[in-house]
Amino acid sequence: MRVAGLSAATGVSVATLKYYVREGLLHAGTATAVNQADYDESHIRRVRLIRALLDVGRMSIADARDVVRAVDDSGLSIHDAFGVAQDAMAAHWTGMLDRDDPDVAAAFADVDRFVRRHGLRIRPDAEVRAMLAGAVLWLHRFSRMFPEGMAGAVLFDGLVPDLLAQAEFEVGNVPDDVPRGDQMEYAVVGTVLFELGAAAVRRMALEHASAERFGRRRRRRS
Amino acid sequence: MRVAGLSAATGVSVATLKYYVREGLLHAGTATAVNQADYDESHIRRVRLIRALLDVGRMSIADARDVVRAVDDSGLSIHDAFGVAQDAMAAHWTGMLDRDDPDVAAAFADVDRFVRRHGLRIRPDAEVRAMLAGAVLWLHRFSRMFPEGMAGAVLFDGLVPDLLAQAEFEVGNVPDDVPRGDQMEYAVVGTVLFELGAAAVRRMALEHASAERFGRRRRRRS
Repeated sequence: MRVAGLSAATGVSVATLKYYVREGLLHAGTATAVNQADYDESHIRRVRLIRALLDVGRMSIADARDVVRAVDDSGLSIHDAFGVAQDAMAAHWTGMLDRDDPDVAAAFADVDRFVRRHGLRIRPDAEVRAMLAGAVLWLHRFSRMFPEGMAGAVLFDGLVPDLLAQAEFEVGNVPDDVPRGDQMEYAVVGTVLFELGAAAVRRMALEHASAERFGRRRRRRS
Repeated sequence: MRVAGLSAATGVSVATLKYYVREGLLHAGTATAVNQADYDESHIRRVRLIRALLDVGRMSIADARDVVRAVDDSGLSIHDAFGVAQDAMAAHWTGMLDRDDPDVAAAFADVDRFVRRHGLRIRPDAEVRAMLAGAVLWLHRFSRMFPEGMAGAVLFDGLVPDLLAQAEFEVGNVPDDVPRGDQMEYAVVGTVLFELGAAAVRRMALEHASAERFGRRRRRRS
């Protein structure tokens, strides 16, 4: 199909598609004439992946490029490529933390203890550590607001068993009998989509709990 | 303190502080002379709240303004103000969904059933519905990747009991004996900080599960 067909199939404007190609996110179509190229199913899939990374994962173009390169780099093991993708998804938080700040250093040390305490296999330089350190740091900054002792990564200890079981299920579901690129897509897309869904349900639970505590009394059906 | 002191206390540049005042995020200082104003503890707290909304909650300036107005509007009940804050936090996802698209309409209908099935008290127009609808829609778009039947809000059913218990705990911890503004700050900041921490732990669990399935074998300690 021509670029207009790719645009119709994906709902992404031709200008944006050309931008993705220039930025190295989307592979070029097969040239069929001067200024004309042919696109196929692989382009539709890649555009969907890009939109999931940008819209749902809220990644920068540069970070999304790191992810698609990792998806395409057959020299990387699945686990290493997943690490690249994870790091790109957490880049927003890493950039905010100044490691020379003693409070930041303390938050990272707290995260190190959390990882060891739960026996988690997390790369020493994994950006996800900065994500948890960010939450710990911000909780510390607002500590005046919270009850005594409500601080530190220890607050998240209770989540670990359920989230490990859930992660084992999700990673276990990555199919064995498909090409490596499909496995990568599955792992990356699964991370961002399930995170969005879980965050939405969490917020619904909060609204419900707020209605029960602070809202008007629920009318009883008679 | 002068604006330079507020900048030192918060780590936010003077130019950015002035921008917050112009944009209606931060209340002006008390004028002490021409071009001079005095700032106090209330400004430090407000700047922290703004940074939490922008950096951790990733809100736009306009959405953050909606939240601080709700925090300050003593005519709103805590529950209504929390609703405003929740909507502002989900605005990113609402903007992406075209409700005339039949797939989008189907995703919203699926979310309606989810809310009814779990007896959740969620406002009919709550933006968080769009957040879950977004996750459902994207899962649908990638459905080819996932095992048969792995679709729809039903995928998130299993999360509800734990998240409700957790939300009840968090909302139950909002202190009774503090000013309304403090309660609001607690509810809003708690939502974004715990979400970040929970997402980080979820991603750690995924990296761990990926290491166990796809990584090199863990060396045994001897």
